[in-house]
Amino acid sequence: MGRAASPGTVYLVGAGPGATDLITVRGLRILASADVVLHDALVDPGLLLEADPRAEVVSVGKRGYCVGSTRQEHINEALVRYARLGRSVCRLKCGDPCVFGRGGEEAEVLAAAGVPFAIVPGVTSAVGALAAAGIPLTHRDAGQAVALVTGHHDPDSPDCTLDWDALARLPGAVFYMAVRHVAKIAARLAAAGLAPSTPAAVVEAGTLPRQKVYASTLAEIGDAMAAAAVTGPAVFVVGEVVKYREKLHGFVASEGARV
Amino acid sequence: MGRAASPGTVYLVGAGPGATDLITVRGLRILASADVVLHDALVDPGLLLEADPRAEVVSVGKRGYCVGSTRQEHINEALVRYARLGRSVCRLKCGDPCVFGRGGEEAEVLAAAGVPFAIVPGVTSAVGALAAAGIPLTHRDAGQAVALVTGHHDPDSPDCTLDWDALARLPGAVFYMAVRHVAKIAARLAAAGLAPSTPAAVVEAGTLPRQKVYASTLAEIGDAMAAAAVTGPAVFVVGEVVKYREKLHGFVASEGARV
Repeated sequence: MGRAASPGTVYLVGAGPGATDLITVRGLRILASADVVLHDALVDPGLLLEADPRAEVVSVGKRGYCVGSTRQEHINEALVRYARLGRSVCRLKCGDPCVFGRGGEEAEVLAAAGVPFAIVPGVTSAVGALAAAGIPLTHRDAGQAVALVTGHHDPDSPDCTLDWDALARLPGAVFYMAVRHVAKIAARLAAAGLAPSTPAAVVEAGTLPRQKVYASTLAEIGDAMAAAAVTGPAVFVVGEVVKYREKLHGFVASEGARV
Repeated sequence: MGRAASPGTVYLVGAGPGATDLITVRGLRILASADVVLHDALVDPGLLLEADPRAEVVSVGKRGYCVGSTRQEHINEALVRYARLGRSVCRLKCGDPCVFGRGGEEAEVLAAAGVPFAIVPGVTSAVGALAAAGIPLTHRDAGQAVALVTGHHDPDSPDCTLDWDALARLPGAVFYMAVRHVAKIAARLAAAGLAPSTPAAVVEAGTLPRQKVYASTLAEIGDAMAAAAVTGPAVFVVGEVVKYREKLHGFVASEGARV
């Protein structure tokens, strides 16, 4: 299966949810053959070992919440610059490039600059982390829709444009980058009518050996998080699907460490 | 990266959105080393060539809309039976096993039977097909949430439990298995208040060489589909993200054929 990265092309590659072997075959091939690798801070160092030893490997991560436009502009400029030098570029992004990952924005910049590019999709965090936690993202007996939501913005801030009533009426929702705001998000959903007993969970470092799962209810997940001091990347899931973890937990063979 | 499939274990593996090299590295490894492969009908034949030549490869696909409970029970029984014979089993499912794929149900059966299993996530169709069509699943300027929805049920049927008002209030939604019901779904969303001019598209055979994209509006997508006679698997996406295709179309390097 395969071919190498082409000169002057930028590949927006999803690294997957965490474990190094949850990247796609195509993504790994591009990573292994690119001249330049520009990667997010959270990409596993083990995965970067798969890059060509001659490749230039550059961290362009935005740690924590300091997502200034300057930094993104810096990344955009670097992508265009390397491609115009005729170098193949693997832009390695956590999860999937286009699910709350600014892949669409980077693609726009490349298109406007006339730089050829391709999007290599990845397993998005909600899909990977929940599966590793024994929580199916959807289940026939738990509704027919699920929302993927960015939990990055403070719900009290005008930056947050979420429609809490609509979200509360869906069977389930997964919030990305929500660690700081779990309690507030839960409170908004409860105020919008979601039952306090609704199952809820936070999956920290999903698919990695240090993965942790905090399973609770909408009413109590905020306190659980405050006590847990979660620092790593995490997804926050609300809905009946969480209850399946009780049946599946312990049976899911751990694979995170074996790469 | 890796180890082989373990005897007596069932691996629920996501094959990804279509193109054979969009399976994960872990998924491919399991596929290549399993004693038995039970695969959906839509899994690409080229991917099955990666199975061990000595493996028993069995199609357990449910073509079209004939999703009888008997058939799913047959699959469940086969998974347990093969595992109890001490054989490693790769249950290869399109997209991700747990996104409208009954992976959760199969996992429940395995857990109840005491069969060790693991879920190997995959790139879900919405993520893969949209990226290949030049449509980012999310975009910072197009809202902070997107719904993944099954479009399998006739909206007029009591089997359909979707809350159209809630869906219409989200910035975007992607419907899986919606080919038959695109016009009705669009009508429901419009009746719930979504503007008729909202961008909408259907991506058929996403990521495969025969991929087709039908980009239109909420008001007109139903007629466009009736004229197109789409038969293959497809996703239906509604929301402002569709408009980015105009900027990205033509720049996305085609990768579907190169595996």
